[in-house]
This record gives sequence, C-alpha cells and structure tokens, in this order.
Amino acid sequence: MTDLSRCANAIRALAMDAVEAANSGHPGMPMGMADVATVLFARHLKFDPSAPRWPDRDRFVLSAGHGSMLVYALLHLTGYASPTLDDVRRFRQWHSPCAGHPESTELPGVECTTGPLGQGLAMAVGMAMAERHLNGVFGDALVDHATWVIAGDGCLMEGISQEAISLAGHLQLGRLNLIWDDNRISIDGPVSLSSSEDMAGRFAAAGWHVVACDGHDFASIDAALTAARADPRPSLIAARTTIGKGAPTKAGTSGSHGSPLGAKEIEGAREALGWPHGPFEIPADIKAWWEGLGARGAAARADWEARLAASPDADEFSRRMAGQLPDHDPLPAHLASLVANAPKIATRKASELALDVLVPALPELLGGSADLTGSNNTKARGQTLFSATDHAGRYVHYGIREFGMAAAMNGMALHGGIIPYGGTFLVFSDYMRNAIRLAAIQQIRVIHVATHDSIGLGEDGPTHQPIEHLASLRAMPNVAVWRPADAVETAEAWACALRDETRPSVLALSRQNLPALRQDVAENRSARGAYRLVAASNQRGAVLIATGSEVHVAAEAAALLESDGIGCDVVSMPCWEMFAAQDDVYRADLLPADVLKISVEAGVTMGWERWTGSDGITIGIDHFGASAPAERLYAEYGLTAPAIAARVKARLGR
Amino acid sequence: MTDLSRCANAIRALAMDAVEAANSGHPGMPMGMADVATVLFARHLKFDPSAPRWPDRDRFVLSAGHGSMLVYALLHLTGYASPTLDDVRRFRQWHSPCAGHPESTELPGVECTTGPLGQGLAMAVGMAMAERHLNGVFGDALVDHATWVIAGDGCLMEGISQEAISLAGHLQLGRLNLIWDDNRISIDGPVSLSSSEDMAGRFAAAGWHVVACDGHDFASIDAALTAARADPRPSLIAARTTIGKGAPTKAGTSGSHGSPLGAKEIEGAREALGWPHGPFEIPADIKAWWEGLGARGAAARADWEARLAASPDADEFSRRMAGQLPDHDPLPAHLASLVANAPKIATRKASELALDVLVPALPELLGGSADLTGSNNTKARGQTLFSATDHAGRYVHYGIREFGMAAAMNGMALHGGIIPYGGTFLVFSDYMRNAIRLAAIQQIRVIHVATHDSIGLGEDGPTHQPIEHLASLRAMPNVAVWRPADAVETAEAWACALRDETRPSVLALSRQNLPALRQDVAENRSARGAYRLVAASNQRGAVLIATGSEVHVAAEAAALLESDGIGCDVVSMPCWEMFAAQDDVYRADLLPADVLKISVEAGVTMGWERWTGSDGITIGIDHFGASAPAERLYAEYGLTAPAIAARVKARLGR
Repeated sequence: MTDLSRCANAIRALAMDAVEAANSGHPGMPMGMADVATVLFARHLKFDPSAPRWPDRDRFVLSAGHGSMLVYALLHLTGYASPTLDDVRRFRQWHSPCAGHPESTELPGVECTTGPLGQGLAMAVGMAMAERHLNGVFGDALVDHATWVIAGDGCLMEGISQEAISLAGHLQLGRLNLIWDDNRISIDGPVSLSSSEDMAGRFAAAGWHVVACDGHDFASIDAALTAARADPRPSLIAARTTIGKGAPTKAGTSGSHGSPLGAKEIEGAREALGWPHGPFEIPADIKAWWEGLGARGAAARADWEARLAASPDADEFSRRMAGQLPDHDPLPAHLASLVANAPKIATRKASELALDVLVPALPELLGGSADLTGSNNTKARGQTLFSATDHAGRYVHYGIREFGMAAAMNGMALHGGIIPYGGTFLVFSDYMRNAIRLAAIQQIRVIHVATHDSIGLGEDGPTHQPIEHLASLRAMPNVAVWRPADAVETAEAWACALRDETRPSVLALSRQNLPALRQDVAENRSARGAYRLVAASNQRGAVLIATGSEVHVAAEAAALLESDGIGCDVVSMPCWEMFAAQDDVYRADLLPADVLKISVEAGVTMGWERWTGSDGITIGIDHFGASAPAERLYAEYGLTAPAIAARVKARLGR
Repeated sequence: MTDLSRCANAIRALAMDAVEAANSGHPGMPMGMADVATVLFARHLKFDPSAPRWPDRDRFVLSAGHGSMLVYALLHLTGYASPTLDDVRRFRQWHSPCAGHPESTELPGVECTTGPLGQGLAMAVGMAMAERHLNGVFGDALVDHATWVIAGDGCLMEGISQEAISLAGHLQLGRLNLIWDDNRISIDGPVSLSSSEDMAGRFAAAGWHVVACDGHDFASIDAALTAARADPRPSLIAARTTIGKGAPTKAGTSGSHGSPLGAKEIEGAREALGWPHGPFEIPADIKAWWEGLGARGAAARADWEARLAASPDADEFSRRMAGQLPDHDPLPAHLASLVANAPKIATRKASELALDVLVPALPELLGGSADLTGSNNTKARGQTLFSATDHAGRYVHYGIREFGMAAAMNGMALHGGIIPYGGTFLVFSDYMRNAIRLAAIQQIRVIHVATHDSIGLGEDGPTHQPIEHLASLRAMPNVAVWRPADAVETAEAWACALRDETRPSVLALSRQNLPALRQDVAENRSARGAYRLVAASNQRGAVLIATGSEVHVAAEAAALLESDGIGCDVVSMPCWEMFAAQDDVYRADLLPADVLKISVEAGVTMGWERWTGSDGITIGIDHFGASAPAERLYAEYGLTAPAIAARVKARLGR
C-alpha cells in the first residue's frame, strides 16, 4: 500500500500554499479532511478525469464550500485538465477557475456551486433523487451511481439541512452518503459555544444509517465508507477530524479556519508533515499515484459507454441528459383549444392545464409542491408519485420544505436528465430565495410555480400576500420572472421557461379567476416580454402597462378612457427580462417617449420608473396588505378600472 | 370538575362558524386542538385578559397560525376586550382584528404575527431567551414566566424549526414548552406522504425533554403539561390529536384543514359534539366558566404589580419594557472623537466602535452573530456571553443559524425589555429575509448588522457578494436600509436605528476600509436619508448620488470633473426610506430636476431611476460578481473615479 499520508499531504500543501499566495481563503478544512478525501477518491468514488461530466459518474459535492482548495487539489492531482497548477497558484484571482468557493460554471469537475452553507447538501439530495429516478426509468445498466457530500457543522446547523436530511430519509435515498467533517470548530470558536446536538441521534431520527470513524485513520475511514455504501439507507459518516491538521500551533483551532496560516506556521507544518517540498511543488511519485487513481476510472466509463451504445434507450437517455426538448411540442394544440374555449380561470389553473399536456409529452419533467399541491395546481393528470418505493414516479410531495425543495430542484437540474418544477406560494419564495439565486448563478433550468401571487389571495392576510416579491425577484440577475395575464399567456410562459436552458424561471400565478384576453396564438407574443394587447382607438394619450391579474383591469380602465375620448394602448408585460432583451425599436414603439405611461401592478412600484419614465404614473401597493376578500382589497388600494382611469384623467387634465 | 368537553366545544363551534361565515379559513386545527388549549388555559397559562400586555404574563404563541380561530376563540371566551363576538363574526373581513392569520398589531392578546410556518416557534425561542435574560438581570420577583407554543407538522418540517430547537436546547430554555399538534395530516394528505421522522428522537437529540399525551384526554394532557413545566429542559409535548375533531366525515382528514366544512358537515358536527346552540351562540354557563378562568389571572398580576412597586429596579425595568432609551446618549462624545481622529476604517469596524460605547450605555442592547463575530464586529468590549449557564449575558453565539437568529431577535423585541441586534453577511439576508419581513409587518425595532455588503468583500466570490440585496431589501415596506459611507455616518445610522421604534433597520456595512468623509457632526445629517456632502465649485453640471463604500469614489470622480471645469455636487444617500420621508423642497434642492443626476452603487441599478430620473445615469452592477481582490472587481466593473467621470463627461458631451 502506498503511503497514503504522503498522498494526503499533497492536498494539505496545496491548500496552505494557495491560501497563502492569495492572502485569503480557508486552509483548515482541506487540511482536516485531506485523509478522508484521499480514501474516498482512492477506494470509493467513481470518477474519470478525462470525462468530467460522463453521466454515470458518482457525484461529489463539497457542501462546506469554503474548503474549496480541497476539491481544486483533488481535481488537479487526479489529472483533470483543469484546474492546472497555474490555476491553483492563481486561487481567488480574477479569471482563475479556482474561485473562493467552488463554482460549477468554472470547472467541469465541480458538480455544483455550493454557495451559502447547507445548500450543497440539499442539492446533493436532489442529485440523489435524480439518480434514483433515472435508475427507475432506465435501469442499472445506464444509471447506477452514488452521491457523496462533505459537510461541516455550518452546513448541519443551517435549517435547510434538516429539510434535506428529513426528505432524504423519507425517500430512502440509499445512494446518498454524507461525510460530516466533525472537527468541533466553527468560526467563533469551539462548536460548543453554539451547539450541543447529538448529531447521530438527529440523523437516526430522520431514518439515516449512521457510522463513525477516525478521520485521520485510513483503515477506519475506509471501513466507514464501505459500511455507508452497503447500507440501503442514506448514510451519515461522522468523521472525527482535526481542523488544520499539520499546522503546528493552529491545528484544532478556529485560527486555521478562515485565514492564511502565515509563512512561519506553514514552515512548521511542512516540518510536522514531513513535506520538504517547496510551495506548489508535488513530487513526481505522488502526482503519479494520484493520476493513477484518476486513470482507473476510464475503464468503468468505457464499460458504461458500451452499455449505452447497446441500449435501446440510448437516444432517449442522451436526449434527456443533453437537456434537449423532444421534437413534439404539445403546446400549439393546447393553445388552439384555449382560444376555442376562452376559459375564465386562475392562471394557476391555466398552469395545471398546460402541465396536463406537458407532463405526458416531456418525460423529463419532474414536479412537486411543498405541501400545496391542490393550491399550486402542480400535479398533472395521472402523474404518479416519486416515493421510497417508486423512484420512477414523477411527482414529489416535498412536505413543508420550500427551501429544501428549491435546492433539490437545483440538484436535479445539475445532475441532468430532468427538468424540475415545483410549487409553493409566491410569498414563500422568501424562504427559498437563495436557492433561486444559486440556480441563477449556476445558469440552470428550474421552474418555480409561484401561485397566490398578490393581494388577490385575499383573506390569508398580509403575511401571505406578496407585495415586494416580484420586485425583489426581478432585482436578481439571470432570473426570468413571469406574470401571465390569462391562460394563453400562461402556456406561453411555460413554453419560454422550458426553452430557457440557462436560467431559472418563476411563474407568478393568480389564485383568482381571470378573463381570457388573448385570441391570437400564432406567435408566442409573451416571448417578447411585453406586447401591445390593445391599441388605442382615439388619438393615443396614454399607455397602460400591466402584468398578470391587473392586465384585464388595465384593459377595462382603457375602455373607460376611450369612452371619454382618450386613446389608450394596453401593454401586457408578462416578463421584464424578456422585454429588456428586445431591440430599441421594438421597445420604443411599445413605450413611446412622448406619451404618458402608467404601470399597474398589485405590488410595490419600485423599479417601474424604468418603463414609465420619470413623468409616468406608477400604480401599485407600497405597503403591506390586509386580511379581507380580494375584491375589497383591490377597491381599497385603488386597483380598479375607475380609480385608474381617474388618475390618468387627472394627470392629463381631462 | 366542569365538563371540560363542553367548554372545549365552544372553541370548536366558534371556529366552525367563523370559517363558514368567512367562507374561508382553517377549521381543522382549532377543532383538533380545542381540548389541549382548554387544559392549557384552565390549568397552566398565566394570563390576565384585563391587562393583555402585563410584563410577567406567560407568552402563548400559535405558531400554526392558520389555526387563528383557536386564539380568537380563546381570547373572546376568556374575556379579553377584543376580539368581540362581532369581531369573530367578521373573521377575515376588512378591518376585523380577526385576520386570517394572527397579527400582533391587531389584537393585544396576540403575542406575535406568526406568519409563514416555523417562525412562530423561532420567535417563541426569542421570547424565552428574553424572559431568561431579564430574569437574570431583574430576578424572579419581576420576571418569572413561561413561553408556550403550539406548532404543527408544518412548523416542524420547516428548516427554521431545527435552528430554533437546536438553539433552545443548547441554551437550555427550560421555560419554553412546545405543544406539537400531532394530527398526522398536512394539506396534501397524510404526513406520511412527505415525512417519516421520529419526532421524539429528533427533539431528544437537541437536548429537549419529550413527553406525549392523548390530545383528547384531559387528564393525559394535564399530566403532560405538568411534566413539561417541571422539567428543567425545554419540553416537547407531543399531543396526539384528530384534526377537525367533531366533524362527522372530515375529522382526521385533510378535508377539514383549510376550507369551510359546509353547512351539512357543521350540522353533523353540532350533533356529534352535543352542541345544540346556534351559530356564534355560546351558552351563558360556558361563557361564565371561561371568563372565570380569565378573571383568576388578575390576582397574579396584582401580586406582581405590588412586587414591582416595591422593587428598587422598578423605574429601570419599566423604562426597558416601555422601549424608551436612557437619558444619557453616548454618541455625541463618540462622534466628536471620530472627527478628531478621522479614522480610515471599514464601516463594520466603525459599527464596532459605536457598539463599544452603546453597549455599556444601553443595557437593553442584546447582541450576537450567526458565527461571524470577528467578521461582523458585533461584540463590544467586555460584552459577556448569554449561555445556558449565564442568561444574564448580553452576547449570543447564535451558531450558523441566520434565520433562527433573525426570528429570535423578533421574539425578543416582541417580548419587550430588549433591543436586539445581530450580525451576518449581507448576502445571507436571503436566508432570514422573511423574518425581516415579519419584523416590518409587526413594526418592531430589531437591528441587523449586515457586513461584507458588496463586491468589496472580494475573493469569496459571487455566491457571497451581495448584488441585488440592497434593492430587494429596499423593496420591502417598512424597513430602513442603511448604507453608511464612513465612521460618522455609521454612528449616525446606529442613532437612527435605535430611535426607530416601529420598524427594523438593516445596517449594510463594508468589509474594506473607507476614508473619513465627514467633519461636521453637530447635526445627524444621515437622519435626512441623503444630504449634500460636497457642493459644486464650478457651475453645477452634475449631481453624483452614492451610498456607502461608493461615496468616496463619487467624491473622487467629482474632483476629476471639477478639475475639468464641470461643477459637481456629491450627495451621500445612506438611507432611501429616510430621504423619501423628507419634504419636496428638501428633496428638490438636493436632486434638482434640471441637472444630470448619476447614481453610483456597487449593486443592481434597479430602482435608482426614482432618484436619477429617466435622463440620469445609473452606475452599478447588473450581473453577479466574481472571485478576485476587491480593487480588481471595482476596476473591472467600472466603479472607479476615472470611469465614472468619463461616463458623465460623455453624457455631457465634454
């Protein structure tokens, strides 16, 4: 057996050196987990550096993302094309793929941008769900891999970890193995300052298998990982480690957590570790050993590729993994039927009608709701349940776990082969907000069905009525926020969200019924982000811009104005982001500079000046709502056709 | 012994009738928990309807807020002045205090606006912390009460519950008793659809005492509540109940959860319960029994008032509970020293300097951090720890539990006697966003120290760099978002936040050092929200508006423009909300209509058009950041004085 200690010390040395060179970063975690990671990569992880994204690889998630040098060291040592040693030297510098925290958009060997603590674990749960689902559909020959996570106390103190753990236990995701870096240190000092949890008891209560090991004893680590793989339940491997192991004075203290060790401490560590090599210098035999590990994976991949080539499912599996939509698009026929029937329904119901045709046609759609299935209208006709006993099912009862759901959806999208969608109330987007952000940063396609999108939900009151949520989601880069006005726009929004491969979409949908407004469906007009729904009859004196449930109100206001001789366009603007991407000519034609522009939306007015201009009118709700029937709230807050028409006339002096 | 069943049935009847009258609401939970609540109020809860907010009452939190009719029924029956029976009849109607979910701003008997699930429990943890802290300071004579919570599976599936439970166990909040409505039903159906947790095991792992009871057996309930009170640990009382108990066909099903039962089912329930009375009709003997319970509390309150009157601490205790600041204000002397020293420091460090003088002067300040104490600079000199063994300490190591921290802070503010502040990175405000919202809705004073407020944090990269966070917090009604530019403005922001009794404040603070900009401290200029820091020397051609760490950059850009003969004001705008509240004359003087206005902020530009006008320039970052040193990022993103000056000159054609 090779001297694993020396191999592990290569990780420690790279971590110390890179953090020192950057003069910023976290050496303690990679140094503490180097031994565990070495055993994981040497004996258990299925990976092939020459094909970082082959579908049946094991997924390895560093949930404790501040320890990013651990994964950069592993990728470099085992022979991935990137990061190069030069990349590692440029850790945390402009344009280096070795960012402060691991980013999946920077390195193909990084499975996810773990982001703030806890979410890596929750995304790993989604990856493990995706794996079991695709295994259920395509069988062991094509899909048979594990998901490994390294998490620290930070991840496990975050609330989202409980949602993830509980869901994984409930769904019996046995291929999920979580290695807990039990170093008893957090930034503020010993973990005992802030926590007294019996971690093993907590995981056991959630239906997990629990095994412990000495994180610096290779045989103990190996035995624990072996036991984890063998157990049919998800496994917690509690690895007792020393943070910053090797650092002579800072090991075992928070002093090694989040700052460079300093030249003197590094010198001492080199001595203590028996590592006489210079900064960023890896002896050839050590590098060869690591590369040998990496090379071993090619055989497993070749076997898998042969199985894929021989499989009758090869094309379908490859299509799904590539994220390509099927050739047949069921929406045109659906849109035609909507025009024929002109249903007056809530857009959440319209979304259900769209799902009723999309779910059968797109087998990659995997949906769910955070315990609001009947309210979010997320379950299509005949959609079967994804459960511990049937992972091939396509609908998940996520429980009251919005954040866990959103992160799991990210994990599924990252895994590939699935287009996840999930429902909750728009107001609860606050709970999962940072998971939406991580989807945006990672440029992945996940679709949020966010119903009860305004005071239109009525009696549940201010805590459940979104007011600032549309604005705050629009503020987030790389998110498409949709607020369709009727059933046709809802179907068009679904079409756009499905095509939008590099960003998440949020469909904000009404609880209340809305009249059919669109009769023309030859073109997906919503794809422009905004379009002229009604053109002025009289000479144009105003342009009303509205979204979602306020479009029909704006149209009624326009009719009142027209009856007073004031010409009024009505612009439906279901998606700011799509509209912002149109050319100047289109935008200027829709929102001419010399005409009074008025926005109407049942939410905060912040940001609407961008479309109305300084001289326009922004009509909305810049305060919290109240508990009352929806119609009453709309009337009290001035969101009725007569009230809007009156404001326009007052401004025009008519 | 009175027939407790009949007394409990009064709750059931009111819940059924009110939901039916509103044609919306949740009858199942009040009907299921009526027996438990009856025993709680009859035998255990310390309360006095004639003085709903006397300081030493027990706190009762309905975390499962959708069951609001439970608390409305209890308040009405026991003799609180409000809600009246008429209020109850108008459940969920415009201007009724009986809102869809309990709201502390509507009814003095409601301890908190529980909002989305899980937060009631987490606020209760804060209340229990406040109680033990004030007990530690003022002793048993003045502070000696319990905190009771009713939570359902929804609350306990939410991740925040784990943060709350874990923190409560760690801090050994023995006066906290959580009654779990174990009805095994959620909205989507049986809880087994989404969860398989061993709840007792989970709580035991967090250091809680666990006791179970039959939630429809009065003796069993009483024994469990008695055991909970006796145990020195926080207690979970697992009450096995039947949701909608009494409803002939819907009891025990999700059908009774969230919709009116319907006339026929209610008729059947009246029969099954032996409740022959009409809608909203409470027999006199039942009402008298409940009012008798309520009247009993007056004696305990009178005893307490006598103790308060006799206490040497009476004035100080009353001052704190009233939320009045002490007479002595330490900030003027601090500001004078800042002018004398003109320190070039990060505003997070400036905040620490302010805390060093505020914490000793304001004993009601109770601070903490979510495991970023040294980064948030939240711990003042000499501040001792609040811990399981010393509840009189004033600094909390919250652990990596941002959401739990923010909700606990809300609970402390609601309890009274404490002004809570807590620190984390601004980007993690996403995790606690809805708790900030609940503070805003509840109009309470909590202060968030949100450091590392921009790309200025540098190497940690895009997942840790706030971009849209200032905009998204400004979008929220009733939140004061501060971004001070130097040490003086930071102290001024603290002064304003402390005076702002009816809303939360967020202090967005820099990681990087910033030059001293202000020499004048006679007036708190930040209190205007924005002010002219530098007036143009040449004829004014531009007004640069900036916040926080970009103010000095704007001032440098202005100097460049002046050197080219272009007069340029520099407006520092530390708080949009305070500026929006100024009169038109002040605002127009600062931001004149006929001059080019340019905003400069290291975040999304959304919303800035409100201040720059359509013809202005908004300079910011409308994309995610990157991992690199801060200076490099500022340069790459055009946030340097030369880049800004160049854009202004280009627009002016100079």
